[in-house]
Amino acid sequence: MELQSLNREKFFNSLREHLTSCARPLQGFVLLQGGEEQTRHCTDHLELFRQESYFAYLFGVEEPGFYGAIDIASGKSMLFAPRLPADYAVWMGEIKPLSHFQEKYKVSQVFYTDEIKEVLFDQYQATGTPLLFLLHGLNTDSNKYSKPAEFQGIEKFQTDLNTLHPILTECRVIKSDLEIALIQYANDISSEAHVEVMRKTKVGMKEYQLESMFLHHTYMYGGCRHCSYTCICATGDNSAVLHYGHAAAPNDKTLQEGDMALLDMGAEYHFYGSDITCSFPVNGKFTHDQSLVYTAVLDAHDAVISAMRPGVSWVDMHKLAERVILESLKKGHLLVGDVDKMMVERLGAIFMPHGLGHLLGIDTHDPGGYLKGAERPKEPGLSSLRTSRKLLKGMVITVEPGCYFIDALLLPALESPAVSEFFNPVEINRFRAFGGVRIESDVIVTSSGCVNMSKCPRKIEEIEAVMAGVPWPIIKTTFPSEDGQV
Amino acid sequence: MELQSLNREKFFNSLREHLTSCARPLQGFVLLQGGEEQTRHCTDHLELFRQESYFAYLFGVEEPGFYGAIDIASGKSMLFAPRLPADYAVWMGEIKPLSHFQEKYKVSQVFYTDEIKEVLFDQYQATGTPLLFLLHGLNTDSNKYSKPAEFQGIEKFQTDLNTLHPILTECRVIKSDLEIALIQYANDISSEAHVEVMRKTKVGMKEYQLESMFLHHTYMYGGCRHCSYTCICATGDNSAVLHYGHAAAPNDKTLQEGDMALLDMGAEYHFYGSDITCSFPVNGKFTHDQSLVYTAVLDAHDAVISAMRPGVSWVDMHKLAERVILESLKKGHLLVGDVDKMMVERLGAIFMPHGLGHLLGIDTHDPGGYLKGAERPKEPGLSSLRTSRKLLKGMVITVEPGCYFIDALLLPALESPAVSEFFNPVEINRFRAFGGVRIESDVIVTSSGCVNMSKCPRKIEEIEAVMAGVPWPIIKTTFPSEDGQV
Repeated sequence: MELQSLNREKFFNSLREHLTSCARPLQGFVLLQGGEEQTRHCTDHLELFRQESYFAYLFGVEEPGFYGAIDIASGKSMLFAPRLPADYAVWMGEIKPLSHFQEKYKVSQVFYTDEIKEVLFDQYQATGTPLLFLLHGLNTDSNKYSKPAEFQGIEKFQTDLNTLHPILTECRVIKSDLEIALIQYANDISSEAHVEVMRKTKVGMKEYQLESMFLHHTYMYGGCRHCSYTCICATGDNSAVLHYGHAAAPNDKTLQEGDMALLDMGAEYHFYGSDITCSFPVNGKFTHDQSLVYTAVLDAHDAVISAMRPGVSWVDMHKLAERVILESLKKGHLLVGDVDKMMVERLGAIFMPHGLGHLLGIDTHDPGGYLKGAERPKEPGLSSLRTSRKLLKGMVITVEPGCYFIDALLLPALESPAVSEFFNPVEINRFRAFGGVRIESDVIVTSSGCVNMSKCPRKIEEIEAVMAGVPWPIIKTTFPSEDGQV
Repeated sequence: MELQSLNREKFFNSLREHLTSCARPLQGFVLLQGGEEQTRHCTDHLELFRQESYFAYLFGVEEPGFYGAIDIASGKSMLFAPRLPADYAVWMGEIKPLSHFQEKYKVSQVFYTDEIKEVLFDQYQATGTPLLFLLHGLNTDSNKYSKPAEFQGIEKFQTDLNTLHPILTECRVIKSDLEIALIQYANDISSEAHVEVMRKTKVGMKEYQLESMFLHHTYMYGGCRHCSYTCICATGDNSAVLHYGHAAAPNDKTLQEGDMALLDMGAEYHFYGSDITCSFPVNGKFTHDQSLVYTAVLDAHDAVISAMRPGVSWVDMHKLAERVILESLKKGHLLVGDVDKMMVERLGAIFMPHGLGHLLGIDTHDPGGYLKGAERPKEPGLSSLRTSRKLLKGMVITVEPGCYFIDALLLPALESPAVSEFFNPVEINRFRAFGGVRIESDVIVTSSGCVNMSKCPRKIEEIEAVMAGVPWPIIKTTFPSEDGQV
């Protein structure tokens, strides 16, 4: 929980700096409400609880029903725990004393949630009505707003809904060493699980069996109870469905001879996630066509990672990936003509309609991709980018170029006066049931470049060797020790 | 999907019978709203969707965002599918034509959700304002109400909120042969997974590793993507926490030499669940004390199953289980005195505070436990019963006696003038860190008795043999074939 202490300290300093710069008083409280347990519809079926991400960032609390506060005058941190009924001890487990949570979560004080109003009034040092900074702001991936804390008696306070969200979000954008260590841990166990799945994949299996093997490996050997997102286990033409795997497309196809598999799966550990995609032929040997598309994507992946460093624009990285893919497709005779002109016509978005990558952390699509006032690019492909920012040291971002043959995009493009000239229709038609390839790694931006945190076999010869049984040892990054050193 | 056709037919006949008996016209529509996909807090993290249970019962739809209707005049069934945006094809998968859903879900007609009002007005054969029967009623396990369907234009209809819920709920109480086949399938694969876990359990493992093995086995080899409920993998004194395993008690203890394990885990298949508990010593050999408590519970489990048949009161079965356990504890010198007197003083509820079992089906705690107007028993233990009904042929109910040593109940009882005389405090104290034992099977009531659908090793010698490596073949019930025969 030292992690959350450091997160709080960093955030506290940012907030005070901001208030000082606006000549506002260093008074009041930051107040966040943690998540509540949810039941399914009208039943008593409890969904497994996972903490709300901003609350997890500042307080790291695993249990539902908490509130957390930080006193802006003193920096003191407070948790408010739910007062549990006596029969909780029979049904749910020991009722822990408040001191348990103080110890576990390293906060200054712990009270009950029914004491919030009284405690905050008591602790307020200045005169007048105490001011609460509440979390309210847009998530630019979901287009939803975070829900400000609510409690009985909140009407007795002044509230500020504007200050907190951008400052706290920006804290989450730049990862500390301890945060990086957790993301690295999630990457190590997920990389290992990807290798395990790759090795055991056989024609005739069901896609969900690949999901099951991944989930089992990361939970059994990594203690990861949650995944960062629902596993995408797409084979054959399903690999052209970018978010395959949900309830309406539930990883239920049988693996066929000649299929490519696109497996996008990542485990979460202590709230921090990973997000890794491997693509490979289910029978373990790349065909010529599979090599062509795979190499196009891998070259884009590698070119981006070679170019990443602080100050580089993510939009430029997206375009770099597009250009490499288009050049490869031209070399492979799927496209003809001038790649510069293809870039102008945004041809890359036909083959890669999604953005090159996104910030990663406590959320898979971590917030902060667009600073307040920043506009999304309007052009096809670029409009899907979850961030258009310049890279900063400490950002963790996914690099996930892809090349897909999607009828819904390809057929209109083949008919379009603006771009039809670029296609070799005979070759393109040969690829129409191919599906797609995505290669996704999690990358940390360093002061002089970047480091790829994902440790999967990427080269064609590596993948074929691993699938044939050659060892792929993953040297695991040491997990932070007791004293917080990585 | 023949299953849901049969469910609809049964329900349709029940509803028409009811309306006829009340001299009400056989006009109007039953309208249910399916579940919606949920995101986590303000993020775009999608939770894996699982259909609302009443909707699953009548329509079996796997996808979110649907409505379903039944015309009471004609029996015609209708589904209303969401109209998906064009880019769904790029991100989520093929946009299926309405005919796809008509074929898949065997309904008379399929429309879009934005057509509900027009379609129902068009199809209404009688004069006047069409009447909609909506689902509204209390779930007696959660104390929550189901949410009646809502759509734009609903105010143009008459609505009836009272008729539907009790009739539909009662249909769900009595299982058809096809429903039983699915519950049997879930039981077979879950029983097999329990055996697999039992075999691989070793001192030094983490509780969550047992959960991981169970989940993997049921998904990998049974295609079960969902569980009926969060796995309870409780060892040592955690086994006295009845609903262990949730986020605040997350199966994270290390298995110690001498611990009992209490594993309550059940997979779900095509909406229908299983709910099975096995208890065993983690080192594979029962001690004298472990045998004593285990045998008390197993004798109760077996006595109840021997006595179950249509017409038997579930309250009497609960008391039978209590009596068998109290007699065993007396024989084992933990209790002293007259068992009849212990029963009067409700001593059984100290050792088994939960109810003996619950209806099982699409929900783990399937609805219908208390008919309208039925009151819950007030006495300790009995007040936890999720049903007090008389058994009926076709009910599937769990038989899950348990015996726990829970400080929160035991310590006050040892001090209580009414019951302290029954305890042998020296012996009781010896068991205070024991935890508990639960043995849970899913049982179908037949015309002349009942059948245990769960196929786990239960006798002490069976468990010890299985844990030592002796085979435990599970003869799987044949899954319903194409023609619907079991």
